[in-house]
Amino acid sequence: MSRLHWIAASIVAVFAAAPAPARADDATLLSQAREIFKPLPKDVGMPDLPLTAPRVELGRMLFFDPRFTIDANISCATCHQPALYGTDGLAKAIGVQQRPHPRNSPTILNSALSIIHWRGDRESVEDQAIKALASPITNGLPDEKAVLDRLARIPGYAPVFKAAFPDDAASMTVQNMAKAIGAYERTLVTPSPFDAYLAGNVNALSPTARAGLEKFISTGCIACHEGTAMGGSMFRKFGVLEDYWKATGSQTIDKGRFDVTNNLDDLYVFRVPSLRNVAMTAPYFHDGSVMALPDAVRIMARVQLGVMLPDADTRVIVAFLESLTGELPPNFGTIPALPAGSVLPAK
Amino acid sequence: MSRLHWIAASIVAVFAAAPAPARADDATLLSQAREIFKPLPKDVGMPDLPLTAPRVELGRMLFFDPRFTIDANISCATCHQPALYGTDGLAKAIGVQQRPHPRNSPTILNSALSIIHWRGDRESVEDQAIKALASPITNGLPDEKAVLDRLARIPGYAPVFKAAFPDDAASMTVQNMAKAIGAYERTLVTPSPFDAYLAGNVNALSPTARAGLEKFISTGCIACHEGTAMGGSMFRKFGVLEDYWKATGSQTIDKGRFDVTNNLDDLYVFRVPSLRNVAMTAPYFHDGSVMALPDAVRIMARVQLGVMLPDADTRVIVAFLESLTGELPPNFGTIPALPAGSVLPAK
Repeated sequence: MSRLHWIAASIVAVFAAAPAPARADDATLLSQAREIFKPLPKDVGMPDLPLTAPRVELGRMLFFDPRFTIDANISCATCHQPALYGTDGLAKAIGVQQRPHPRNSPTILNSALSIIHWRGDRESVEDQAIKALASPITNGLPDEKAVLDRLARIPGYAPVFKAAFPDDAASMTVQNMAKAIGAYERTLVTPSPFDAYLAGNVNALSPTARAGLEKFISTGCIACHEGTAMGGSMFRKFGVLEDYWKATGSQTIDKGRFDVTNNLDDLYVFRVPSLRNVAMTAPYFHDGSVMALPDAVRIMARVQLGVMLPDADTRVIVAFLESLTGELPPNFGTIPALPAGSVLPAK
Repeated sequence: MSRLHWIAASIVAVFAAAPAPARADDATLLSQAREIFKPLPKDVGMPDLPLTAPRVELGRMLFFDPRFTIDANISCATCHQPALYGTDGLAKAIGVQQRPHPRNSPTILNSALSIIHWRGDRESVEDQAIKALASPITNGLPDEKAVLDRLARIPGYAPVFKAAFPDDAASMTVQNMAKAIGAYERTLVTPSPFDAYLAGNVNALSPTARAGLEKFISTGCIACHEGTAMGGSMFRKFGVLEDYWKATGSQTIDKGRFDVTNNLDDLYVFRVPSLRNVAMTAPYFHDGSVMALPDAVRIMARVQLGVMLPDADTRVIVAFLESLTGELPPNFGTIPALPAGSVLPAK
């Protein structure tokens, strides 16, 4: 049985077992949860992209360094701020020279566990990083040479690249920048009370949050929000039962993955976002059209599942979602002091 | 004898005692240094602005929160980034909606020890904060009400303000925002190897740095760069012996404090910047016109003191200045996770 079929079957099973569901006992609920969700790993390493300490540290430095973008004032951390849980808090990101980004900045936390970008047009965090370095919106420099020229103006970077990529004859490359940024991002995982719960500590969730978990399962949210990231693993049409923009009040209609594939099956299709830290990462959806989490939950239930969620159910589901908030990773909340160097002459 | 007269007298004394100065012995040099400079205090508290932990923590949160500026994407930390030692690394700051700031962003580190702003048109860090909240360049919101309206959209702030200002009936005010930001900034001091030296550990400075200290004193730099902040305590004309813009290559001529006071004596007058962390805070001068520290040192010697500094002297002075780099304060390098809340509807 495929994973999806299995999930669908378990939803049916829950409904079938309890058509007017009584409160599941704690052991049963935990057991169900363990079938559906998985606790976070300590990092999202890749065999061919080792997360060595020097490589992660270089990536962390580059992540916080604004000096490789056109006006030297935008870094990865501009749209993925630690203070805002790896987001910018905006509906849609603002890039270099005020250039508008077409979609909402998702949190960088746990991002290596998900399909990357709302339309899935990035293969990995490394692919995202290298394309961001070449993007007119997020970077603005004309080419790789211009990026490397900026690096060369900061003498302190050479030994850090050498330590991160000791086997490379020329270690200061845009490819290695992206590998290092990716390695860093693969360490940004945020174990939460819910992970403690999955590990067997039932009281890591409040009774309200446990009621929310039960409701989250029985309502069918788990059809998409499952696994380690509680989402992030599949594409889905946004607005299965109703045009999404009517529910969200979106000012523009984004065709989603269709614009990437030109396949009509992908019209209004987006990646399912991870729900980890969702309580800390407003506003919601690909266009940041919804500001409050309870509204986002109600809209999802309605347009994806055809369920008009009662307020009491919304409340407990939100309490459950709040249990997905983890601690900021120490190497994200703590900023590296960068090698000194001014890169742009005064105008 | 006033402090300035005393400093002038001691410069004369150094020259008089050693017209072709031999290397001062370590005890003599330390003793001279202790007369001229003072080690950093642990903070820059004010009796009427107590640095209580809740007030400092509120200020820290506000410092890193971009949601009170017009597009909700610029915070104090945009121009005063921890990764860049409390600067933005730019010649001149870029404000909200790409609005240009007329001068270079000085580091926020140790700023409470200095005259505030290049032209001294801010009375204190608190005065700077409240004026930044009202500025079209750094904030862009129309008035205090608009700032408070943003605060009100983030429910998590109310208890933090209450804890920071427990005696105020209405604690969420722009005045209290500024007091809290100021309290936080007053804690951002960076003890350095030079402070360890002043405390008596001669080996905290390398022999080269000690030679640089001796040269820094004998060249006359201490006429302005003295005291706790090694600068920051007085105004001086930039370009005593030569128009500054000819030396710096400045593209525009800034009249400095004259534009504040309309007093001809203030033409081209700026505050003397603190030299603490100067090796980490390029580019240099009020307009960021000079990118490299050795060039800045040479220009200062030439246009302020009429000294054509030999390369060997420049090198040892730079080594001394590098000893003024302190550790990032833990509450600056570590970012607070802010209360959740989206403040602007999607467009």
